[in-house]
Amino acid sequence: MNIPSKHVEDLVEHFASLPGIGRKTALRLVLNLLKRKEEEIESFSKSLGGIKTKICSCKKCGNLSDAEVCSICAQHSRNHKLICVVEDIRDIMAIENTQQYFGVYHVLGGVISPIEGIGPNDLNIIPLLERVNAGEAEEVILALNATMEGDTTNFYLYRKLIDSNITITTLSRGVSVGTELHYTDELTLGRSIVNRTLFDMAPVKR
Amino acid sequence: MNIPSKHVEDLVEHFASLPGIGRKTALRLVLNLLKRKEEEIESFSKSLGGIKTKICSCKKCGNLSDAEVCSICAQHSRNHKLICVVEDIRDIMAIENTQQYFGVYHVLGGVISPIEGIGPNDLNIIPLLERVNAGEAEEVILALNATMEGDTTNFYLYRKLIDSNITITTLSRGVSVGTELHYTDELTLGRSIVNRTLFDMAPVKR
Repeated sequence: MNIPSKHVEDLVEHFASLPGIGRKTALRLVLNLLKRKEEEIESFSKSLGGIKTKICSCKKCGNLSDAEVCSICAQHSRNHKLICVVEDIRDIMAIENTQQYFGVYHVLGGVISPIEGIGPNDLNIIPLLERVNAGEAEEVILALNATMEGDTTNFYLYRKLIDSNITITTLSRGVSVGTELHYTDELTLGRSIVNRTLFDMAPVKR
Repeated sequence: MNIPSKHVEDLVEHFASLPGIGRKTALRLVLNLLKRKEEEIESFSKSLGGIKTKICSCKKCGNLSDAEVCSICAQHSRNHKLICVVEDIRDIMAIENTQQYFGVYHVLGGVISPIEGIGPNDLNIIPLLERVNAGEAEEVILALNATMEGDTTNFYLYRKLIDSNITITTLSRGVSVGTELHYTDELTLGRSIVNRTLFDMAPVKR
């Protein structure tokens, strides 16, 4: 595919470097942008150019933030003794959306993955241990993805935290809400029977 | 979905305004960009900011171009008496990829679509008629998409060009190469029988 303009080619390459965007999609995006007004493009370009300087990560939890401390860590009404460890900020947003959690977070920035060459030292683990050792936490919730890498990281963190005299919990595993049982995989279904809970008419408080 | 940073939110909105990109995908792209080096972001941002000033359309055919006349119109070896009318530059790239066409192009910039409020005056039609009336063309190939809007535009152009004593052709319709006959829709299969061609062992010259 030969693009007749070097500048368009350049921009297509930039868009195509993003995850999930191929050259054809990138070209479609660029052609769409070419039809926009100049102000709009300028605002997009400025917004993009500023991300490295304007956006910082919260010095407490590692969440994205415009200030030194993120809006969650700055809320006094939250339980700062309860720390939920997540992989990235999308997990924070997902948990916040449930409106069921009122503690604070700690963003690891990834999970241990030997295949991708990510070890414990590449993650935001030491600041977590410092928070715990400083007596900041009473309970740490390990809320990493239910994948092999997530489980490995959960286990690593558990080993690091076990001596520090705090409660260590993890997300419950079980059948998803709205799922038909016969479509649930046997591992999940097995766990949900072993870890059955007392029947409760209103398990989710709104 | 509440994004904890206003700047990230802004950039997500910009990405989500692109076709086929929703807010979740946009956030994934922005998080990916946040991990890049500053130089890379700056180059992306500059490339984006420059598209309105650096990229122009060829004054002859409307193709994207870095100069006044595009690389295709500037080639003397091409047959400038043969004009292929296409909807947008992606069609030029598709036809160029076949390596079967050696004429020049004319980009309409869209097709007539009453539903989207696009009439003949919104398209690059008058410059085409001027090129034809100036005696530039011997043959015009109407190569618009095989959709209702494309056919309508083909018909409109045909009516406008019919008096100008040039050959007006269109792309042949028929069974795609590599298709199984029983999967071909009846309209296409019907046309391919009516418009059958003499058997030729090498219909595509390479």
